[in-house]
Amino acid sequence: MTDNRIQGVLAPVVTPFDRTLCPDAERLVCQCRWLLCNNVGLALFGTNSEGNSLSVAEKVDLLETLVEAAIPAERMMPGTGCCALPDSVELTRQAVRLGCGGVLMLPPFYYKGVTEEGLFRSYAEIIERVGDSRLRIYLYHIPPIARISISPNLIERLLKSYPGTVVGIKDSSGDWENTRAMLETFQSQDFDVFVGSETFLLATRRAGGAGCISATANVNPGAIAALAAAWRAPDADAHQAALTALRQIFQRYPMIPALKAAISVHCGHPGWATVRPPLQPLDQDQRRSLMAELGAIGFSMPGMDGTTPSDVLG
Amino acid sequence: MTDNRIQGVLAPVVTPFDRTLCPDAERLVCQCRWLLCNNVGLALFGTNSEGNSLSVAEKVDLLETLVEAAIPAERMMPGTGCCALPDSVELTRQAVRLGCGGVLMLPPFYYKGVTEEGLFRSYAEIIERVGDSRLRIYLYHIPPIARISISPNLIERLLKSYPGTVVGIKDSSGDWENTRAMLETFQSQDFDVFVGSETFLLATRRAGGAGCISATANVNPGAIAALAAAWRAPDADAHQAALTALRQIFQRYPMIPALKAAISVHCGHPGWATVRPPLQPLDQDQRRSLMAELGAIGFSMPGMDGTTPSDVLG
Repeated sequence: MTDNRIQGVLAPVVTPFDRTLCPDAERLVCQCRWLLCNNVGLALFGTNSEGNSLSVAEKVDLLETLVEAAIPAERMMPGTGCCALPDSVELTRQAVRLGCGGVLMLPPFYYKGVTEEGLFRSYAEIIERVGDSRLRIYLYHIPPIARISISPNLIERLLKSYPGTVVGIKDSSGDWENTRAMLETFQSQDFDVFVGSETFLLATRRAGGAGCISATANVNPGAIAALAAAWRAPDADAHQAALTALRQIFQRYPMIPALKAAISVHCGHPGWATVRPPLQPLDQDQRRSLMAELGAIGFSMPGMDGTTPSDVLG
Repeated sequence: MTDNRIQGVLAPVVTPFDRTLCPDAERLVCQCRWLLCNNVGLALFGTNSEGNSLSVAEKVDLLETLVEAAIPAERMMPGTGCCALPDSVELTRQAVRLGCGGVLMLPPFYYKGVTEEGLFRSYAEIIERVGDSRLRIYLYHIPPIARISISPNLIERLLKSYPGTVVGIKDSSGDWENTRAMLETFQSQDFDVFVGSETFLLATRRAGGAGCISATANVNPGAIAALAAAWRAPDADAHQAALTALRQIFQRYPMIPALKAAISVHCGHPGWATVRPPLQPLDQDQRRSLMAELGAIGFSMPGMDGTTPSDVLG
C-alpha cells in the first residue's frame, strides 16, 4: 500500500430512483453517509449500483451532488469504464477533477473476443487522454457479466506502462483461485487486490489483499468492515462464517432488487425498491420470503430503522 | 409489408475515424452515398459500425451531418439501443426527429440473465418516453455478442402492445432455424424479418423475409442488393453461392478491421483502416493475405477505385 490509497471495504452503492426512474440524489447522499459511518467506502456506479443503466451526464451530476453535500471524494471509487472511449474519458476526467480516491474501470464490454492488445490500447487511450497524475485506476475483472476478461499479462503490461496510475483490481470472477493467483503475482508490485465478495474477505486479508468491494456491503457494512480491520482476531473465522451466511441469503434472490428491497423495508421508504429496466423489483413472494429469512437470523440495519439515515447520522 | 417500410439490403455502415480516433463525418457521407447508389440502405451505428464505441453525442452529430448532406433519412435505420435507458431514449428521439425510416434496437446488454418482463419494460419505457407515432423499431437479436436474447414471446408481447411501432427484427443469431421460425411465426403479423448475413438472403426472401442487414454489404453492396431484388431469377442459387463465397473470405479475419482494410485499399485512403479500441486493425500479414484472397476471385468495389465515391457518384 502506498500513501493514502483506498483500503478495506467498499460498497457498490445502490442507486435510488424516483417514480419517474430518475436518480434520487438526496437519498443517495443519505445512503453514502450511512455507509461511511459504517467504515465502508463508496464504489459508486458499480454493477450493483446499476451503473451501466445510468447515462454519463447522470453519473457526473450525482458525483457533483455528493461532493457538494460534503461526502469525501477520497472515499469514492466510481465506476468509469464504458463501452465508448469518449464516455470513459469524460467520466474518468470528471471523477479526477472532483478528487475521487480512485476509479473502478470496466473494459469496454460490448465487443467479445477482443485481443489483449486492444484492451491495453483502450486503457492506455483513456489514461493518456485524461492525462492527470492524480488518476488512480482499479481494473474491474467481472467475466460473468462483462464477458471480457482482464488477463494477468494485461495487468503486467499496464503496471509496467502506467505505474502509480494502474494501482489495483477488483476481482469479481467468483473464483478464489484466480484472486489468490493475482495476490501472489502482483502483491509485490504495489498493486491492491480487492475481492468481489466478502465470502473471500478473510482469505484475501490473510493473503495480503486490500479488502473487498461487495454488493452486500450495502446492507451489512459494519460487520464486513469490522472483519476487514480485525482479520487477525481469534474469532475471525466465526466472523467470516456469519458474513458468508448473510450473503448466501441475498444470493438466493436477484441481488440488486433484493438489496433494494431490504433497504426499502429497513429505512421505511418504499421508493428504494425501484430499479431501472431491464431489472425488475422483487415480486411480493420473493420480498416476503427474503424478509422472513433475514428476520430469522435477526438481521438489522442499525441507524436506518424507522428514521432516515440523515436524521440519525447527520 | 406496409406502406413505405424499409426493405431489401442494409449495411451496418462502417464508421471512419481520423488520426485522433474521432469520427470523420465527411468520409461517412461519401460511404453512405456509395452504398445508396448500390441500392443498399444505411443501418448506421450497428455492431459492425462500432456503434457501441461511439458516444450518444457523436452519433447524434453524425446523423445531423448526414441529413444536412442530403442523405435521405428514410433510408436510415440507426442503432439506438444502449445500456442506459436515458441514452436509448435520447438517441431514438433524435433519430425520429431527423426522419429516420426506422431504428435498430439492441436490448440493454450489460446485465445478463434478465427477465422477459424486464426486457419488455425496457422497450416499453423507450417507446412511451419517445412518444412519437413516426417511430419504427426493429428489434436487434444478436446473442453471440449482446449475450441477451429476444425471445418469440417477447416479440409477441411487444407486437401486441405496440403494433405499428415494433415492426420487425434483425436476426443475427447465425442460426437459420431461428430465422425460419421467426418468419413462420410473425410473417402474418406485419413484422419484417431481416437476416443478419447474406448467406441466408435467398432462403429469407423465399420464405417471405424483408431482406438482410449484413456486414459485408459494406464492401459488396451491389451484388447483395441485386439478389434481394432478383431472388426469383433462374440463376438465384448461383448468385447466392457467389455472395456466400465472398463473405466466407471476410469471415476468416476479424470482420470490422477486414471490412475497413478492404475499403481503405479500394478507395485509396489509408485512414479507413483505423478502428477504435478495443478493436485492432489487421496486421500486415492479415492485410496482405486478405487482399490476396480477394484479388484471386477478382473482387472490386466499382465506383470507389482510385477516386473518392463523391467524385464518382456525387
